[in-house]
This record gives sequence, C-alpha cells and structure tokens, in this order.
Amino acid sequence: MRKAVVLLSGGLDSATALFWAKSKGYQAHCLLFDYGQRHKKEILMARRLAKIARSPAQLVRIRLPWGGSSLLNKGTQLPRKRNLKQMAVGIPSTYVPARNTIFLSFALSYADAIGAEAVIIGANAVDYSGYPDCRPQYLRAMQKAATLGTKRGAQGGQIKILSPLVHLTKARIIRLGWRLHVPYELTWSCYAGGPVPCGQCDSCLLRQKGFEEA
Amino acid sequence: MRKAVVLLSGGLDSATALFWAKSKGYQAHCLLFDYGQRHKKEILMARRLAKIARSPAQLVRIRLPWGGSSLLNKGTQLPRKRNLKQMAVGIPSTYVPARNTIFLSFALSYADAIGAEAVIIGANAVDYSGYPDCRPQYLRAMQKAATLGTKRGAQGGQIKILSPLVHLTKARIIRLGWRLHVPYELTWSCYAGGPVPCGQCDSCLLRQKGFEEA
Repeated sequence: MRKAVVLLSGGLDSATALFWAKSKGYQAHCLLFDYGQRHKKEILMARRLAKIARSPAQLVRIRLPWGGSSLLNKGTQLPRKRNLKQMAVGIPSTYVPARNTIFLSFALSYADAIGAEAVIIGANAVDYSGYPDCRPQYLRAMQKAATLGTKRGAQGGQIKILSPLVHLTKARIIRLGWRLHVPYELTWSCYAGGPVPCGQCDSCLLRQKGFEEA
Repeated sequence: MRKAVVLLSGGLDSATALFWAKSKGYQAHCLLFDYGQRHKKEILMARRLAKIARSPAQLVRIRLPWGGSSLLNKGTQLPRKRNLKQMAVGIPSTYVPARNTIFLSFALSYADAIGAEAVIIGANAVDYSGYPDCRPQYLRAMQKAATLGTKRGAQGGQIKILSPLVHLTKARIIRLGWRLHVPYELTWSCYAGGPVPCGQCDSCLLRQKGFEEA
C-alpha cells in the first residue's frame, strides 16, 4: 500500500485532507505538532480523528522561542470579527513564522525515513487568513526542495507534496468532506481554545461561513 | 546593524560560516540543534564558538522519532575509512532525513520573527558525504520557498539563504577560516563523539585531508 504522511492539526481542513488521502488509497501516517500553540485542544482532536481514520499518529513537540505570533503568546489579543475583505489584506498577528515550512520539513523527514511517496497538507488559499505559506506558489517551491533535498528524491523517486484543498472554497471543502464522511463534530478550528468556540476569530468565522454556504 | 541567523553545528564549516558572517558586518544570531545526534559534544563546542564570536546562541531541541540515520542511532555502525571516491557514490547511512530542510525552516522562522535579512548555512558540496540537502540546486529551491513562504518575503523584502562555502574545497574553507581567525581547535567534526576524534568516519577524514592540503 502506498504510504503518505498527512499533516493533521485537528481542524476542518486537515481532517478533510486525511479522509481524502484514505479515499485515494493511501496508508496515512498522521503527523501532529505541539508547537506551543495557545491551547492543546486541537491536538486532542487530531488524535481522535487519526484513531477514527485508523491511522497511526505521531506527535512532534517543538518550541519556537523567538515567538512572533499571537498564536504563540496567550498574553496577546487575537484578531476578532474580521470580514473576508479585512482578512484579504496583509498578514495577521496569528501568522506563525515559517510554520508550514517547519511542518513540511518534518513531514518530508518522516516520509523519507518510512518510504512514503507523498506528504499531504490541508493548506487553503481561498477562504484563509492570508498566510504566505498557504499559497500554491509557495507549495510548488517546497516541492522542488523536497525533490532535490531528500534521499528518495535524489535517488530518482519523488515525495509529492499534495494540497488537495488549496484552490477550494471552505464550502466546497465541507461538501467534499461530507462525501468522505469526515466527522466534523470532532474537528476544532477556534484559535482561542475556550470551552466552546469563540465565534469571533478568523478561524471560527471562516468555519461558520463555510458551513452556512455548504 | 543587519541581522543574520547562522546555523551553527560546532563543526569546521559552520564555524567558518559564523566568522564569515561577522566579517561581512552581520550581527549573527546562532541557531544550535539538539536533534538526537549520537553525542552532545558538538553542541558544547557550538556554544563556545558563539561565545567567542560574541553572538547570542539559541538552542532548539527536536526529536525525529522515525530515525532513518546512523547518526541518530548509537546502535548502528558508522561508515569507516571511506575515500573520496567512495563518498562520491550514493548517500551514506549518516544522512539524516531532510535535516537541512528542518534546520533551514527553523532558521527562517527565527529570521522572520527578529527581522533578519539572511540565513547563513555552512553547507558544502565539494568535500562532503554526498548529502542531497547540501547541494546548491537544493539551496536555490529553499531560497524560493523562503521568499514566498515568509512574512518578510511576502511583504517585498527577502530572507537570503547564504551558503558561502558551498563551492569551496575543505582546504580553501580552512584557509578562509585562518584569515578570519576561526578557532578551529574549538570545532568538533567527528561523528562518533568519543574522547578524541575517531579519525575514521567521513567527517574526520574530510577534516584531516582539508588540513593537510591547506
């Protein structure tokens, strides 16, 4: 069975990416990160999702002592009640410096070690917060680095970086997920991590909008 | 003063890269990794080198539970007594899957957070062990990812990935380091990490050859 490493955050997009990977016949190896995010709820959710998908979950713990993000610092305020137009301008304080490059680098390491032919990331560049490391042109550059910088790539194989959701609206992602029986009730999108979703951060608002439209 | 993040392993090449950065007028922020390598000697050396260069040192601790390298597993044998011709063929067991991609991703994160305009890596693709992620074409791909995937890059700036040693022989690196007063007696290259260098691993042999020729 073809192996794939799936980056799994516990949110809506990565959960859909996991079930997409399974529908494509991949044996999914989930990679979870504790990177000092404001709350650990999403890690718990990611573990449950992996279990339901009958996929092994590997947690990696890292720290970014230089900070640089309101997602890493509980003392800062999260952006609230922004509409899509506001989200489309600039890079918000929730941007974590080079997060996807870090996540992808570990995923490539994992893939190269276990002989996986793909790394799957639920990045999206339509209904998103404007993070530069979610855009397709960035992912293409990482693909090149993956091919040139891994053993598998250097030996004539390839580790494909697949981002099946990158061009989809949130509503289309959800409709895809419904077809794939993604248990969305077990996903967690809210940045704040309170007992219930805050309903005001970018992530909550994009999620709400997606479900309404779907 | 222009800031640069310098990847510092405690070896000969990265020490030279650090002193090169200083000679170019960069304020160097050293980034050290405890990634589960066979010994911690090189981390100790890297700390000392940073101190001598009067540069702050930031240690990041990561683990690669999937292994895939004899540098991560003390129970495996290191390649021994290989000549340059043997090193030029294939990728040895000391290759750590996607190590430089991981190191560069943290360096980019650090640089993006502190507003550094460069990341400096002592990668070399002449007298080396054949690691794919030391080659100039790989570093060029990472440059593109860095420009597209960071806040600084997306906002019209750039984080340059500089690899000043990539095309130099070991002897030329050492001659450059002598001019820059690199304290090579404080660098550690041996993979094994015994009380004295083993003199037989690729890293020891490349170092010996470099000093003889220089």
